[in-house]
Amino acid sequence: MSIVGIRGTFFDFIDDPWKHLGQESAAARFVADGLMVIEDGIIAECGPYAALAGRHAGLEITHIENRLIVPGFIDGHIHVPQTRVVGAYGEQLLPWLQKWVFPEEVKYKDRDYAREGTRRFFDALLASGTTTCQAFTTTAPVATEEFFEEASRRNMRVIGGLTGIDRNAPDYYVDTAENFYRDSVALIERYHRHGRNLYAITPRFAMGASDAMMRHCEQLKQDFPDCWINTHISENPAEIRALLDLHPDCADYLGVYEKYGLVGPKFSGGHGVWLSNDEFRRMSQSGAAVVFCPCSNLFLGSGLFRIGRATDPDMRVRMSFGTDMGGGNRFSMINVLDDAYKVGMCNNTLLDGSVNPSLKDAAEAERNKLSPYRAFWSVTLGGAEGLYIDDMLGNFEPGKEADFVALDWNGGPAALPWHQSLSYRGAGPETVEEAADLLFGIMMVGDDRAVDETWVMGKRLYKKG
Amino acid sequence: MSIVGIRGTFFDFIDDPWKHLGQESAAARFVADGLMVIEDGIIAECGPYAALAGRHAGLEITHIENRLIVPGFIDGHIHVPQTRVVGAYGEQLLPWLQKWVFPEEVKYKDRDYAREGTRRFFDALLASGTTTCQAFTTTAPVATEEFFEEASRRNMRVIGGLTGIDRNAPDYYVDTAENFYRDSVALIERYHRHGRNLYAITPRFAMGASDAMMRHCEQLKQDFPDCWINTHISENPAEIRALLDLHPDCADYLGVYEKYGLVGPKFSGGHGVWLSNDEFRRMSQSGAAVVFCPCSNLFLGSGLFRIGRATDPDMRVRMSFGTDMGGGNRFSMINVLDDAYKVGMCNNTLLDGSVNPSLKDAAEAERNKLSPYRAFWSVTLGGAEGLYIDDMLGNFEPGKEADFVALDWNGGPAALPWHQSLSYRGAGPETVEEAADLLFGIMMVGDDRAVDETWVMGKRLYKKG
Repeated sequence: MSIVGIRGTFFDFIDDPWKHLGQESAAARFVADGLMVIEDGIIAECGPYAALAGRHAGLEITHIENRLIVPGFIDGHIHVPQTRVVGAYGEQLLPWLQKWVFPEEVKYKDRDYAREGTRRFFDALLASGTTTCQAFTTTAPVATEEFFEEASRRNMRVIGGLTGIDRNAPDYYVDTAENFYRDSVALIERYHRHGRNLYAITPRFAMGASDAMMRHCEQLKQDFPDCWINTHISENPAEIRALLDLHPDCADYLGVYEKYGLVGPKFSGGHGVWLSNDEFRRMSQSGAAVVFCPCSNLFLGSGLFRIGRATDPDMRVRMSFGTDMGGGNRFSMINVLDDAYKVGMCNNTLLDGSVNPSLKDAAEAERNKLSPYRAFWSVTLGGAEGLYIDDMLGNFEPGKEADFVALDWNGGPAALPWHQSLSYRGAGPETVEEAADLLFGIMMVGDDRAVDETWVMGKRLYKKG
Repeated sequence: MSIVGIRGTFFDFIDDPWKHLGQESAAARFVADGLMVIEDGIIAECGPYAALAGRHAGLEITHIENRLIVPGFIDGHIHVPQTRVVGAYGEQLLPWLQKWVFPEEVKYKDRDYAREGTRRFFDALLASGTTTCQAFTTTAPVATEEFFEEASRRNMRVIGGLTGIDRNAPDYYVDTAENFYRDSVALIERYHRHGRNLYAITPRFAMGASDAMMRHCEQLKQDFPDCWINTHISENPAEIRALLDLHPDCADYLGVYEKYGLVGPKFSGGHGVWLSNDEFRRMSQSGAAVVFCPCSNLFLGSGLFRIGRATDPDMRVRMSFGTDMGGGNRFSMINVLDDAYKVGMCNNTLLDGSVNPSLKDAAEAERNKLSPYRAFWSVTLGGAEGLYIDDMLGNFEPGKEADFVALDWNGGPAALPWHQSLSYRGAGPETVEEAADLLFGIMMVGDDRAVDETWVMGKRLYKKG
């Protein structure tokens, strides 16, 4: 058995900060001088160094100094084969797919290209502090194979699957529902729960799935109930309108997935910008999750996701955050938090009643505010809950997988260190509040440069150059 | 006389890309292998190396390779004394000022603190590629003195002035209208057009200025008609409502500044998020400018500036872009372009008619798209036009001041270089279109790391470490 120790300053979460209104720090856990003991990649214990060190005489300890150690970031929605076309110019969702995305993704039929792209994808993730993602691939099985193979080489916890689309895409890109079913079965049997791989049945989005494709997805979920389901929902108004023309028997976007029995635990719908209150309520009741992708929602102009509505205690929806790279223009979940904060604040100007008094809702506005607690919970433990993998990772509880990031709170533009110096006095943060203030500085003034080291299953896979 | 030469790849603008619909590259100028000859800080000529080099035998030439050389960025709206509180958490405009901004700004009464803050401010600007700014200081003359003194030491072209506020701020922060007038006169006489300093009469914002303060501003403009006027306009709905309660004789926000004769050439109003069509029209007719500050508008949740309306040829308003640091959470104009693009795209989802058919406006939507031409014009020549300094700088025309930035198109997160490799085949861009594609990559996937060198008046003041 391999046993290693990490000494440093630890910050993670034990609960959802949205449940601790006015005292969010109660949801966090901070150890200024801590020790994490890792056995074969699994956290054996994590707590104050002074209390634990004596019990582990002879333990080989790596001391990570002047850093905040937080759980590895979880990206709930990302597209592997868009790595190269990240941030492509000029279009909303539907024309953007046709002009930029499908022509690039089709290259992933070629194994060599798929392997290179996938390798670059994971390199970019680790450099961003992301240790787990739920990913889309392409209609070509080879792209999905390369995704799981590369993740396995790095021993990273990932969720992904063959990404089905049989209409509303170019002829060279679509595949049939029958092939999708057959290839999905083979890939599930080969990869699901092999190593850290988890399989998601992945109809790309309802607009791109015929009735036959959706029925095959339903069948797959019945055949393999342990698998995840990953797709898009209610991203863009023009898309929603077009979808409902195709499904006149459905009242709304969610209704289409409900029709095929896909909505429930382990179901993730990316975006949800235009979800109605009723859809939020039904998602909440069924245990389905939404993945908030603010960089993408702003970059493609899809709209402002209603954080304060998704977190309404009366209809609380499970929620992960995602880059949606390449519809999102950044790989880093730190950039995602920057844009997520902005989306919340823009919503609030409408909710304060100054534009339209009938929209005034102070409670929703309060929930829209992305404090550093809410933010970093959402990309760690909260993200894991959204993806139903919080039994495996998301914080530093014993038994969980030892994926973590060492953050340099001064990593970012030249202006950052003086800003951060407002938040602490000693060599580093000494209280949970000081640590949270530094985390807010990282997300709003810093960026991926704050990621100094990324560790997966107790092994360091990335060190900033 | 000092003569130096710069050899490299040059990209600047000769016209406004919004005037070249469908052929925006006609507004740009690209020289793959160029030479800029600089005499005492002023551009003597700039053109193809092959054509010019022969005429300058013996010229000492610095060859800047593998970089795009563009005019120095212009930040039309920024607050020096907010350098340390950049990106402070949790509030819209009015409470944010009270909670974070005034307590920090008051420290700038102390000359040592003001000097340190101002030095850090200019360091951050140069590291961001910004060579000119129009800045707010504080109510304390010492802060304005330090601003001009530090700019003079670096020989940077700046616009700024004592920032008057005599109400709606804490007692410890406000000053009287009489003191403001007296101190402004002294500062104008000491600094305006001394070296590269330009003075702006600066009522902070209408909400913070009593009738007496506004009348003193009017008097200052009459006494010193060559001075600029810099302020805020129509940033936040609650602010607008409160202001109009104070000025029941004014129909709108612009009307308050008009009442005191401040609106005309060299007038800049920061933000303008909620300007009506009629206000845009009156600003257009008067020659006044708006400064678009997207990072701030999103960070404080102020709203979505209507780029496509400000650029409507029937009511075209002069427009600079600004960080509004610290209401904006970034010092870099490259980050400003990222958020500016997103604001335009979010506007467009409303203009495509899919949410509300009555709002459909394809022409305005087209103007909202921030192409790399429009983007980089706006932070160079366009920004200079907005500030009425395009006779001095903004592009590489002979006679202009030699302020420029050498951009590394691969400078940014790990994912950037592979993305950029889609846009060119050789060692660097060979056409204006390839260069523009790289610039779009810099603004949406890169960041301030793309700024490799910053030159002011033909001298290199910043080199990336």
